[in-house]
Amino acid sequence: MDNVKIALFGFGTIGTGVVKILLNQAERIRKTTGKNVVLAKVCDKDLTTQRDVLVPDGVITSDAESIFNDPEIKVAVELIGGLEPARTFILKLLENGKDVVTANKALLAAHGEELFTAARKHGRTIAFEAAVCGGIPILNSLSTALQANNLLSITAIANGTCNYVLTQMEGGNMSYSDAVKQAQKLGYAEANPAMDVDGTDTAQKLAILAQIGFRTTVDWRNIPRIGIESVDAIDFNYAKELGYRIKLLAVARQSDEGLELHVSPTLVPKDNPLAAVRGAFNAVRIIGDSVGPVFFHGLGAGQLPTASAVAGDIIDTVLGRTAITFNALNLWNKTDAVNRIKQPETFFGRSYLRFNVIDKPGVLHEISGIFGKHNISIASLIQHEIEDSAALILTTHEAKEGDLLQSIQELETLRSVQGKVVRLRVQNI
Amino acid sequence: MDNVKIALFGFGTIGTGVVKILLNQAERIRKTTGKNVVLAKVCDKDLTTQRDVLVPDGVITSDAESIFNDPEIKVAVELIGGLEPARTFILKLLENGKDVVTANKALLAAHGEELFTAARKHGRTIAFEAAVCGGIPILNSLSTALQANNLLSITAIANGTCNYVLTQMEGGNMSYSDAVKQAQKLGYAEANPAMDVDGTDTAQKLAILAQIGFRTTVDWRNIPRIGIESVDAIDFNYAKELGYRIKLLAVARQSDEGLELHVSPTLVPKDNPLAAVRGAFNAVRIIGDSVGPVFFHGLGAGQLPTASAVAGDIIDTVLGRTAITFNALNLWNKTDAVNRIKQPETFFGRSYLRFNVIDKPGVLHEISGIFGKHNISIASLIQHEIEDSAALILTTHEAKEGDLLQSIQELETLRSVQGKVVRLRVQNI
Repeated sequence: MDNVKIALFGFGTIGTGVVKILLNQAERIRKTTGKNVVLAKVCDKDLTTQRDVLVPDGVITSDAESIFNDPEIKVAVELIGGLEPARTFILKLLENGKDVVTANKALLAAHGEELFTAARKHGRTIAFEAAVCGGIPILNSLSTALQANNLLSITAIANGTCNYVLTQMEGGNMSYSDAVKQAQKLGYAEANPAMDVDGTDTAQKLAILAQIGFRTTVDWRNIPRIGIESVDAIDFNYAKELGYRIKLLAVARQSDEGLELHVSPTLVPKDNPLAAVRGAFNAVRIIGDSVGPVFFHGLGAGQLPTASAVAGDIIDTVLGRTAITFNALNLWNKTDAVNRIKQPETFFGRSYLRFNVIDKPGVLHEISGIFGKHNISIASLIQHEIEDSAALILTTHEAKEGDLLQSIQELETLRSVQGKVVRLRVQNI
Repeated sequence: MDNVKIALFGFGTIGTGVVKILLNQAERIRKTTGKNVVLAKVCDKDLTTQRDVLVPDGVITSDAESIFNDPEIKVAVELIGGLEPARTFILKLLENGKDVVTANKALLAAHGEELFTAARKHGRTIAFEAAVCGGIPILNSLSTALQANNLLSITAIANGTCNYVLTQMEGGNMSYSDAVKQAQKLGYAEANPAMDVDGTDTAQKLAILAQIGFRTTVDWRNIPRIGIESVDAIDFNYAKELGYRIKLLAVARQSDEGLELHVSPTLVPKDNPLAAVRGAFNAVRIIGDSVGPVFFHGLGAGQLPTASAVAGDIIDTVLGRTAITFNALNLWNKTDAVNRIKQPETFFGRSYLRFNVIDKPGVLHEISGIFGKHNISIASLIQHEIEDSAALILTTHEAKEGDLLQSIQELETLRSVQGKVVRLRVQNI
């Protein structure tokens, strides 16, 4: 039986998980691939920290160059995270004839085109199931079993930290900052959770989902995003009163005018399966023109769920299945970008607005006049007294984003409106 | 660009859906495969019925032999259904060097070993994503992205007819027979729905799920199954009172003593995602040792959802991805069966029992004595008066199946117990 030597870069949480699976499942992997998949090298600059898995002598190294130059190593797994040195390492690995498996969505978001072009040039492959929603087999499903569908939409809860924080806040027993701290303590959030809570991480995942689902090139920086900091504890109460929960949703939706993409805290009807996604779980709902709605739910982060996806990619790469998928998808290839991305002003959807008004005659008339002028129709309205002023909460029917933003701007100039207008989206697919 | 000629057998509901997708998605399929996938022949004995799709002249034929003997046809899709002539046709297609795509779970359940052995002998492949849960990409996920997991369990709602009937009965506005008639009217149930409602169809799907998920050979006839006819309208009320819904569950669960497999109407805790599966939808929940719980939900039947899976398989077969998966899984190969199947007496689980007792002193003492003797511990109990007798409803903690069946037998011999004991399972994973 042939040996296939593989190397792993980054012996952190996920790396340790991958090593565990490769060692524990060696027999299963041997049966599936017909080969001995040998973990030849694990490369990390930190050689001293004890990991909770035993690696054979001579496997751990801090010498990346020795791996780049080892012609026997056929597959390399990048789990360093971040942009550098991950980018340079992957380029060197591809140049040296190695196929790459990575879980690094930030790197793909920033340098996907460069990396995939390099892989094509050298006849190599990059697999990255673990980069989006951890253990949920969503990229694979979109690439294969669902590949005959034109998608109508992808809607995802793709960041476990945000979902954990929103779930805790909704429960009413934690403030935003306590919930973020707790997420860090539980290992869901990074030491610096800024990219989680501001929607960056979710937008990067949406860009990858959209480009596979809609066979197009998407630059995540063009995806309008609002983070969860904009959600106040009282919004959960109003949402509940209206029959909704609040989730950070990533949405890609096809329309005649192009692909609508956004990330924002969104009111989800409480009987929608996405509303039931609790804590650090992730979920993806797709609607295909043939298959209809398909819903996936699972752990989007954590050592073993993420390592499960990485190990699946390693086996697929050894089997040659990755090579077929990589060529068929032809991702991050500019010549292949055909799907128009919609301009945010032309988005079309429902909204939730909350703002304080001075409690005096004629206020509602003034406000409703602004909405009427911009063709925005009110779906529901709540008014609660708060000392001298009143909180006005309303949801709109579907309206054009440009009209809505214009209305908000005009509302905020009114004397009877105090402070800023809080705006969240309402799910309509 | 090369042409790949394909043929389709069975121009019924699903066949028509596949033709629609192949024609509508021709450009997408060309881009993915790099080939013109040409629908060369559609074979059906009925040449006169109008289908709601236009097929080019000369494509429709009733002459199967001409397809077997056409060396240019490389892929054949079997959508005839049933055992014969589907079995003979597939064997001839394989002998004549064609790869096969099928949605026929009954055929795979009955003749999987013969068909897969023939495919291996002739160096061909069989793809069958559509055979289980229609459009839900579950077989593909188990075969690829989740392949590095040892599964702990698979739990599925795999028959849309049964789930539709149970959902309607639970709603309280339809009797069992009315709900079955309505399912037929809506096209979910077969003209003869016997194999749906008695659990046969679900057991056949479970056998396929289990053999891919647990890499073992399972004969569906060895799976104990109870159909939905055993559920009475009042069981929904009691289940609700206890915090459950009733679903026809297919369960495969790994234990130290082997694989436990069964199909039966089951009380599912109302906050479990399987409890929320309504109408004709299907769902699968797997638990993997690395990935943890993953939940899939979608349409398990219907023209286009099923055709979506068939079309995905056609593309995979043209791309060569099916060949890799087919060889790696090495299914229905006796030499590969390693997983012990548990004997039903040794199953271990919770139960719901309902029976009528004569309302007199000492009855509960007598009944509880029987359970005590067999080491069965009661988890909850409801007693409702019904004229002269009383309905006793109880759920047990986990108990050995043999002990439970022995207890039921003894209960039914008691003078104070009237009629049969109704027994449903209670979900415990």
